[in-house]
Amino acid sequence: TWIITCFCLQLLLLNPLVKAQSSCGNPVTDDVNDIAKLVGNLPNDYMITLKYVPKMDSLPNHCWLHLMVPEFSRSLHNLLQKFSDISDMSDVLSNYSIINNLTRIINDLMACLAFDKNKDFVKENGHLYEEGRFIPEDFFRHFNSTIEVYKEFADTLDKNDCILPSTVETPEN
Amino acid sequence: TWIITCFCLQLLLLNPLVKAQSSCGNPVTDDVNDIAKLVGNLPNDYMITLKYVPKMDSLPNHCWLHLMVPEFSRSLHNLLQKFSDISDMSDVLSNYSIINNLTRIINDLMACLAFDKNKDFVKENGHLYEEGRFIPEDFFRHFNSTIEVYKEFADTLDKNDCILPSTVETPEN
Repeated sequence: TWIITCFCLQLLLLNPLVKAQSSCGNPVTDDVNDIAKLVGNLPNDYMITLKYVPKMDSLPNHCWLHLMVPEFSRSLHNLLQKFSDISDMSDVLSNYSIINNLTRIINDLMACLAFDKNKDFVKENGHLYEEGRFIPEDFFRHFNSTIEVYKEFADTLDKNDCILPSTVETPEN
Repeated sequence: TWIITCFCLQLLLLNPLVKAQSSCGNPVTDDVNDIAKLVGNLPNDYMITLKYVPKMDSLPNHCWLHLMVPEFSRSLHNLLQKFSDISDMSDVLSNYSIINNLTRIINDLMACLAFDKNKDFVKENGHLYEEGRFIPEDFFRHFNSTIEVYKEFADTLDKNDCILPSTVETPEN
C-alpha cells in the first residue's frame, strides 16, 4: 500500500506540470502592437543576431515554427540584456519593457508548442540553421511572421507532429 | 541719399543676425537630465562614431571646447538619423526626441562659441583629432564633460581666444 500511495502522490505532484504544458491560452497579447515603436526606438543599423531557418517548400510552416521559436526566444533574451530596466522612469518609451514583454510572449508560445514530441525533429534538422544578423526592421518582420504562423496553426499544433520524409527515411535509433 | 538709405537698410537687416550671434543665453537646458535614460535605452554595445581630441595639458580646456563641440554636433546629428520620430505614436519620450533635444543644446552652444574668431585655430589643429567609436555610456560621458567645460568657461569665452604657442610659432599666412 505504501508503494501505491507514493505512486499516487507522484501523479498528483506531476499533474499540474503536465496540465501547464498542454493547456494553452492565447500567448499573443496586445504587446505585439508595440513592435513598431520599438523598431523606431532602436538604431536602424544595429545588428541583432538570430540563428535562422529560411522558409522552404519542403518544410511545413508549423515545423518551421518548431525550429524558429526557440531561436527567437534566445535572441530576444540576449537583446534584453543590452538595455537597462528604466521602468521607474515612466516618462520614456522603455525598450527594455517592450522587449521583456515580447520575450514573455515568445516563451509562452514556446510552452504551447509540444516540444517534447518534436525535439528529435529539431535536433535532426540543425543543419538548416544559418547564422544571421538582422537590422531591427528585418528581425521584427521575421518575428511578426513567426507570430502569424503560430496563430494560423495554434489549434492544430497538438495534432500535427513534425516528421519530414527525409527524417523518416533515415532511422537513427 | 539713395546710397545712404540702402546702407541703412542693409545694417537694419543684418543687425538681428549679428545680435543672434553675440547674445547668448543659457543653451544648456534641463534636457541634459534625460541623458541617463537615453543611455539605458540604447543597446549597450552600440558604437557611436565621434572624431575626438583627447584632453591634454598643452591644450587649454576652452580651446578643447572649440575642437570638440562641432564634432559632437555632427555625431549627434548622425545618431538622430538612425531613429524614427515616433512622437505621434507615443506620448512618452522616445530616443529620437531626447537626441533631438541634445542636438539643439549642442547647436545652441556652438552658436555661443565665437567660432569666427577661432576657425583658424580649429583648422590648424586638425591633426589632434582621432577617429573614435564609443559605446553610449562613454560617448555621453564625453558629452557631459563637454557641457561641464562649457559651463565653466561660458562667461569668459568671448575674451579668451585660442592661440596656442605652437600655432603662433608657425606662421602659415
